[in-house]
Formats: sequence, C-alpha cells, structure tokens
Amino acid sequence: MDINTRLIRAREEMAKRNLDAFIVLTSDPHGSEYTADHWKFREYLSGFNGSAGTLLVMQQYVGLWTDSRYYIQAEKQLRGTPIELFREGQPGVPDYVSYITYILPSGSRVGVDGRTISQVEYQRISEILDKYNIRLEIHHVDFIDNVFYQRPPMPTDELTEVNPIVACTTRREKIDIVRKMMNEKKVSHYIISALDDIAWLINLRGSDVEYNPVFYAYMVISPEEEHLYIDPHKLSRVVSNRLAEDGIKMSLYDHFINNLRNLPKESTVYYDPTKVSALAVAQLPNSVVRVEGRSLVGEIKSHKTEAEIANIRSVHIRDGVAMVQLLNWIEKEVASGNRITELDIAEKQRLLRMAQPRSMCESFAPIVAVDANAALVHYSPSIETNTALTSDSILLIDSGGHYADGTTDITRTIALGEISAEFKRAYTYVLKSHIALASAVFPKGAYGIQLDAVARQPMWKAGLNFGHGTGHGVGYCLNVHETPYGIRSSFTDSRFDEGILVSDEPGVYIEGKFGIRIENLIFSQPMPETPFGKFIKFETITLCPIDTRPIDVDLLTEEERLWLNDYHKTVYARLAPKLNGDDLDWLQNATREI
Amino acid sequence: MDINTRLIRAREEMAKRNLDAFIVLTSDPHGSEYTADHWKFREYLSGFNGSAGTLLVMQQYVGLWTDSRYYIQAEKQLRGTPIELFREGQPGVPDYVSYITYILPSGSRVGVDGRTISQVEYQRISEILDKYNIRLEIHHVDFIDNVFYQRPPMPTDELTEVNPIVACTTRREKIDIVRKMMNEKKVSHYIISALDDIAWLINLRGSDVEYNPVFYAYMVISPEEEHLYIDPHKLSRVVSNRLAEDGIKMSLYDHFINNLRNLPKESTVYYDPTKVSALAVAQLPNSVVRVEGRSLVGEIKSHKTEAEIANIRSVHIRDGVAMVQLLNWIEKEVASGNRITELDIAEKQRLLRMAQPRSMCESFAPIVAVDANAALVHYSPSIETNTALTSDSILLIDSGGHYADGTTDITRTIALGEISAEFKRAYTYVLKSHIALASAVFPKGAYGIQLDAVARQPMWKAGLNFGHGTGHGVGYCLNVHETPYGIRSSFTDSRFDEGILVSDEPGVYIEGKFGIRIENLIFSQPMPETPFGKFIKFETITLCPIDTRPIDVDLLTEEERLWLNDYHKTVYARLAPKLNGDDLDWLQNATREI
Repeated sequence: MDINTRLIRAREEMAKRNLDAFIVLTSDPHGSEYTADHWKFREYLSGFNGSAGTLLVMQQYVGLWTDSRYYIQAEKQLRGTPIELFREGQPGVPDYVSYITYILPSGSRVGVDGRTISQVEYQRISEILDKYNIRLEIHHVDFIDNVFYQRPPMPTDELTEVNPIVACTTRREKIDIVRKMMNEKKVSHYIISALDDIAWLINLRGSDVEYNPVFYAYMVISPEEEHLYIDPHKLSRVVSNRLAEDGIKMSLYDHFINNLRNLPKESTVYYDPTKVSALAVAQLPNSVVRVEGRSLVGEIKSHKTEAEIANIRSVHIRDGVAMVQLLNWIEKEVASGNRITELDIAEKQRLLRMAQPRSMCESFAPIVAVDANAALVHYSPSIETNTALTSDSILLIDSGGHYADGTTDITRTIALGEISAEFKRAYTYVLKSHIALASAVFPKGAYGIQLDAVARQPMWKAGLNFGHGTGHGVGYCLNVHETPYGIRSSFTDSRFDEGILVSDEPGVYIEGKFGIRIENLIFSQPMPETPFGKFIKFETITLCPIDTRPIDVDLLTEEERLWLNDYHKTVYARLAPKLNGDDLDWLQNATREI
Repeated sequence: MDINTRLIRAREEMAKRNLDAFIVLTSDPHGSEYTADHWKFREYLSGFNGSAGTLLVMQQYVGLWTDSRYYIQAEKQLRGTPIELFREGQPGVPDYVSYITYILPSGSRVGVDGRTISQVEYQRISEILDKYNIRLEIHHVDFIDNVFYQRPPMPTDELTEVNPIVACTTRREKIDIVRKMMNEKKVSHYIISALDDIAWLINLRGSDVEYNPVFYAYMVISPEEEHLYIDPHKLSRVVSNRLAEDGIKMSLYDHFINNLRNLPKESTVYYDPTKVSALAVAQLPNSVVRVEGRSLVGEIKSHKTEAEIANIRSVHIRDGVAMVQLLNWIEKEVASGNRITELDIAEKQRLLRMAQPRSMCESFAPIVAVDANAALVHYSPSIETNTALTSDSILLIDSGGHYADGTTDITRTIALGEISAEFKRAYTYVLKSHIALASAVFPKGAYGIQLDAVARQPMWKAGLNFGHGTGHGVGYCLNVHETPYGIRSSFTDSRFDEGILVSDEPGVYIEGKFGIRIENLIFSQPMPETPFGKFIKFETITLCPIDTRPIDVDLLTEEERLWLNDYHKTVYARLAPKLNGDDLDWLQNATREI
C-alpha cells in the first residue's frame, strides 16, 4: 500500500470524526526514545523512519517536521509523496503548532492519539491552540488500528530477572524507598509509565525495543499494593511466581487505562507529566488530586549506589579492553594496507565487546564515521554510505555496550595519517572542553546548564561550538540516555548531586571535512565540605586512551596536560593487567606522557 | 504613634473590609528598588526600614519576613513590638505565602494594596492561595491613607532635561524605535510604568527617590499619541513646552488608573507584568487583548549605543581619577598615623567624586567596611557601627557616582598591612573569578547563568563561593541596578547580546574576619563571526588599579597574570594624563607588572 493510499485512509478516519487535522507523533504511550514497531505509525503513514519527526495530516495537505539530523534522509524518503518537509530550526520555518494556528480557522478541531502524547506536551499544545479557538482532541484506539494495515503486534518476548548480585538492591527494597518518597509527598497513588523506571524498580529486563533492555508495562503503586500491568506471555512461570511472592499484583497491560478510572475518589495521585500519556491522565476521576512532578523512580535510579558504581567501574575495564583491541586492530589493518570500511569496524567492535564477560548487546546504533561522514552528528554507517578508511583518514567511533552489570558509551576520534593544522586546533579545543568538564568542581545543586558553560568556555574562546548537549545521564544496564540529569545549553530544572553518571562529550564538526568528539562517562562524587558548602567533582569512569597525536600541546594549560597524563596513567594501570601481546604494546605507546 | 497603635488602625481597616490578613509589600506602583517616603508603609507599620521585607498583618498576629542581609537590623528594630521575625532562607522557615496557607482556614480573605504588587507576583500568589480556597483581593487608595498618619506627600521636585549631547538620541527617535517594536509585536497600546524606562525614553531626570535620578510618572503609547501621566508641578514651563512640541500629551499622574478603563475595546495592550501593578492590569477592559512580555524600553535602553558607551568610557576616566586620589589619600593617612574611619572615607570619596566634571551625586549608598564589617555583604557604615582603620586593616569600598554622562559602580578591597595566608588565598581566587568573567567569550544569546558559572568555576575549585549575583546591568546616568540583564546562579530568560553594560563582582566573605569583592563594569562587544556563529567578549570599562599586594602569584595561570598586567597598563595609560604629584606616583606603583 503506497503512502497516498495510507493517507487517504487516515483522512477517512479524520472525516468520520470531523477532524480538520491529525497530529502523528513519534513516541509510544511511555515516552520512549526507541519504540516497538507497533507504535511506528508516523513511519507507516509517511515512509520517513528517522527517530524524530511529527506528521501533520490535513484534508488537503500533509507536512512532516524534523530536525537537522534528518533533513537529507527525510528529503529522500518523502520524494514522490504529497508530504511537504518542514526543516525545524531553519530561519522562517514555523513549528507545527504555529503552522496549525496559521492555516486552520477558528473553531477547527485537531486530533492526536492520546497515548502517544505526554500530558505535559498535550497541555502545552492545547494552551496555544485554545488561544486561536482551535480544539485539540484525544483520539485513540480505533484511529491508528483502522488506518495501520497489518499493524505489527505488541512484542511478547519473555523477560529475564536481573541477577541479585548485579541488581544490588531487591525489588522490595526499591519499592520501600519509593513508598517513603510517596509518604513525604503525601500522595496515595503513583503511576509509573517510563519503561526504564519499571525495569529498574522490579529488577527485570526485556527486549521489546532496540538497544534499551526494557519491556512494555505500567505500574501503579497504591496504599494496598503494587500493581503491574503487563502482557502475561512475557512472564515465565518462575518470574511470575517470584513477582507474586514479592507481593506484586499483575493485570493485563490493556487494563491499565480502564483501571485508572476506578481509582478511589479521594486519592492523591502522583505522576510525571513528561512520561505519562495525556490519555492516562484523562482517565483519572475528577475528584482525585493530581500531583505532577518528576519521576520518583527516575530520581532514585539516576543516583547510582556504591554497589552499582563498583560494577560500572568493572564493566569499564572490560569495555576498555575491547576498545584497545579495536583501535590496535584498526591501525594494524591500515598499516598492512588492508581495505577496511566503517561497517567492518562496527562489526569488529561488536564482536570484541561480545567476547567480553557478561556482555549482552550494543547500547545504541554505533557511529563509525570516516572523514566528512563524521561531520553529520548522528551518522550511522549503512550499505549506501559505507566508506573505507585511507591511510590519511580521521575516524570517529561512538559506541557502547550493555553488560549484565552496566552500560557503556564512549567516543574516540583518531587521526591515522598526516594531521592538518585545522584539525589539530579543533581537536585540541575539544579535548580542552572535555577536560574542563571532567575536572569541574561545582556546588551541590548546580544546574546542568552551568556545567555546560564550564565545559564550552575553552572552545568558545577559540570561536568553536557544537550543536548537541555536552552530557546525558546513563542507565545501569538500562537506557544509555537516562533522564533527568543532563548537561546542555538549555535550562532544565534538574540540580546536580553526588552519585550521578553522565557522559562528557564535547565535539566540533566541520561540514564536508571531519567531525571530532571525545566522550567519557563521568561520575559525580562529593568533596570534603567547606565553610562555603558542599562541592562536587567528577571521577572519570571510561578507560581508553585519548589519541595524543593530534594534540597541539602549546594550546594546553599545564593543568590540562597533567590531567591527560594522569588519566592515561590510570588507563594503563587498570587495563594493562588484562591485555597482552601487541595490544599491550599499543596501550603502552598510546598512554605515554605528553 | 507607636507600632501597636498603628497596627490597631490597620486591623480596624481590615475588619471594615472583612479581611483576615493584609500583606504589606515594600515596593511602589512602579516596581522600584528605591521608593519615595510616600510609599514606605511597611516601614511605618513595622518600624523596620530595610530595603527588603514583607509584613503580614492578621487580627491576632503579625509577622515580618526578611532576608539574611537584614536579620540583625530587623531583630533590633522589631524589639518591643508584637511583630515576629521570619528569617527567610533559614531551614524550616516558611515563606509568607506558605505561612498564610498553614494558618488561615479555607474561605479566608487576604488583602494587598494592588498598586504595590506587580501583576506577575499577584498572579503567582493568587494561584497558590486559590488551591487552598483563600482569596487574594486588591485593596487600595483608602486602606493605606486611612492607616498612614501624616503620610508624606508624593514628591513634587522639578525635572531636568538631559543635555541633547549626553542623551545621544532624541525622545522622538527613541519613541519611534519603541513604536517599531510595537508594530512587530502587533500591539496597539503599550503601558510603561518602570520609572527608569520613562526617564530614559523622554530624556528627563528627577530626584524623587534616593540614588536613582528618576521621577514618578506613567506612560501609555497608543496609536494616536504618547501620553505622560505626571504631577504638572514637576514640569517647568520650558520642559512642559518642549514635551508638547514633541507631541507628548500630558495628564495628571492620578488619572492613569482611570484612563486605563477607557482604552478602546479592541486594543491589544502590551505591558511588562514584573513592572506593572496588579491594580493597573485589573483596570483594563475585559475585551482588550493582554500581551505580557519584557519591557520594550528596557530592552532598548539596556543596549548602550556607540555614543552612550563613548560617554561612559570618558566618565570612567574621571571616576578612576577620584578613586586613585582616594586610595592614595587613605594610604597616606594610615602611614601618617592619622585616625580615619569608614564614614571619613565615605565622605572623602563623595567629595573627590563631586570635584570631577559633570558629577551629580552618588549612585547608591556607599559600602566602606573595615575587616569583619565587610563580611556583612550589604553593610553601610553608620554612626553606631563606624570603625576606624588600623595599620593592619583590610578595607572594602563599594561605591559609585552618577555623572551627567554616565553611572559608575566599583569595588576594591585593599590590604593595608600584613596579609594572612587565608586572606591571600581568598583574594587571589576572587581575582581569578573576576578575570574569568572579564575574559569570558560566549555565543550571542548565552544566558546570565552560564556566564555566572564561568566566573565561579575557579573559586569553586578552591571550595569557595559567595551568596550574591556576579553581575547586574547598569544604567546610563540611571539606575545602578538596571534590568533585565544579570549574571546570577539562578536562571532568568534574558540572553546576552552585544552592547550590554554589567558589573563583574565576585567576592568571598568570612564571618567575623573580612570580606573581599573586586568589581569592574564590563561591556559586551562582538567578536569577528566564525563558522560556528556570533561570539561576544567583554571590554573592561572601569579604570582603577586592583591591589596586587595580596595576590598569590603562584595561584594565577599565565593567562590570568597577563590579563592583570594588561589591565594595569590600560589603567595607567588612561589615568596618568589626568593625575600628578604623589597621586601619579601612587598610580605608577599600583600598576606595576607582577
């Protein structure tokens, strides 16, 4: 069925409901970054399969909004369809909500699937459209089903229990911590819908979506019980019994929405409006008190325990070993004149990681990008774009793995041959910014935007900058992008604390030439308290040499040079015992003092 | 009449109106930092005359909320009254709005003078109280008049016109710029109530409040006219004629509120809800479209023109000369064994500034603080606290002047005798933070909170910090604290641009020992554009040596040392031609390379 036919069916459904427009978002009912195929309705209806984008269907007109990462891909995939591409962020391009207000007259009705829109986004858009007397309506269930021909079913794969030694804390202990927070907030009920929150809380892992070891489920914690809404096919008898033993009540996934309607009238219900769907919130009886706030589980889980961080440190030795083996292999291949491509390197890396104890899978689609390909920040090699290394290439590798006892995310940029002055300067400033964050000290409670500025200051002084965040939270054998902690140039209300694992990944991208990014994971640690309060610093967790060949040592301060030498000393000390042969020689050479 | 009697009268007025509580704020109807005596009702009712504080009067109970700057003063001034002191910011101390929700039952009625509360604050408090079914009502005119015995009248002092050469831009030109912005925002009317906005826009200056050369007035710009609401006694015939020639319509100050009710029904009215009173907004006909946003005049006036900044640079030569004369005088007096006190120094400084061409008055109450006095951030010397210098004192001087062609604000900390290791370390880190901001580079559009983090990073690394902002906007022969630009640890939505004049004033305060602050004014300037966008740096405007004796040079980076030497070279070059005798010798010595 071609895109035109699919759009016709969508318009028929719209006409039945008297809708002048329908908004098709990218997420699932849990606010996930990666979704199961069942929820890929925007892709079905437009043919565009980027990870971000919004389709706006009207009777005479369709538009797709996406950001700069996907301009080229969207152009290509929309060719031959009636869908117009709106390049978000380009000057003069309205966002889709403004566009609706420009094009639809007062009194119009706009639909959206209430499951795929978070409560906070629903409120934001409704408020804007209200001003123009345009109504935003939640339409669900039948709409997508009626249009989505041969819609893939929800995944039914079985879950695995996290090994108790790895979990560090039992599900009962975790639930008790959550209940304590609920008591402090004086709420009777707590709706949990973020998939990684649920996986972490009840120590289960799944494979319902790519890269994130999570599974589709909801939880509601009430005064009497913890209620898990899940497809029972996902639970083996053993797991099901264990959950029951731990006092967890189980119901069908599909009963979640209906059961919300039956919450006791005098309940006080807590939920995170960025994670819970507008449809779920709309089910709550009018009489219940709604308390919106950040995910309580998210708050607890982003603070890694001593036991968790000990495992994470150990994972990074294994991951570092695989990285050293990879980087040594690449250099040997290039030196031998063998032709290797981006895809070869990605596959080699996957195999090296898989050979490490307790490794499970990749934590995201790896970026292996040669020269100009690396200037596209979210490039992933494909058969069409696959490029071979040359002896003068600059290579950027951004990859990570899930291990049973932790998740990794690392980027290295290496120069294989002669180094241009332009690359050298940019590389050195990326390193300076990386070190600025890694060695930052800040008061407990500092905002991510403050740390972001500290990281970027060296680069700004050289007139350089980059268009992505400097750091994101990282899960514990869970999502490689974990909310709420982040280090970005935009303000968010999460205040840094000790025990937070984030990435440190400044970059510089020169279109048509190269891309540079240096990424380690860093972990926030308390410093001795002073009369001026509690201060926090970072410990670098990732263990892998940073290429020193492209560094312009004259541009480094003495402190920066010492930081790098110190880091390399640690890398050598931790990895050397696990390496031998020419891998060990390579490590020794790569960690030499500068 | 004692405080008890005053409170009884206030309670009688509350009873007449069936109010369970009355909130007495500190501001005037224009959101001013300094107010005329006419508006000092909180001081009248409580006896507490600090610049910040809120009084909550109930039938059985009165509380005063103020911040750490005023704990000691408030304790003293409230002694013998029935008023309880609430120390804002202390753990466990509720703010006054929460306190109302704790103590008053559902259905209660709370009053506030609608002129002394901004629209944004009124909305914030109403929303909180609404949740507890407590009503916030705007009570005005009679309430304060009936209670405030011998209330001082509104000031009637005559205004002066700003010299056209100093003004740089005529009032008609300024109004045309505002009208252009109004057109872009598609608004028909614009209400201006911030006093410095009006003074700047129509090139007049007054003396209605201390330190800020402003006057009480409102303006409304409508499609047909610019309407100035002002007491006609303030306008000489000449000024009145000039305004009329420029097409400005004048009405009585007191007619402003009534005239708002008569705005055309289909108007679109723009106002800054942080500057316009809730009473004013409440007058607007229901049918008009309200557009809230930041002051348009504030936006224009905070961007200093080339001509303005040229004048400001010239003012800083004169101010620097007065500073050098002062610092030399202090050292000579101490060396001669003469007893000089904080008040002596403040008076000497005032006289030296007044002796400079085009000087007008001080731009705020000067802080001259010896040793432990300087640890109180907002200390001002008084007869009771006045302290004499000793040959080992540390002295902090924070002062500024209004000149016909610009406003200054400078802080220097000087060590007169032996220097302790503790002071030396803290002083050097304050200097490092000062330099970090002065030499910062950042993309156009960066937030103040980002610059604040860049400034504090060196200090944080040493476990030091301070509890005030790092920088505030400074007016052009106007308020020394000018909104909206600021450099603070809290997020505000003003994005830095070129042409902004702010202070750079990090500090460190050790209770019972000393206080350190180093403050210059800095001016944001564009850098050559790079492929990564537009970047901005600062030019230091203030010209006065920074005491080098307490610097631990080993703690400075090479860049920091060079910055300081470079700054002192500039200071010498600009000030030396205006100095002679031992002042010149002192300057030469004070600006020697380190």
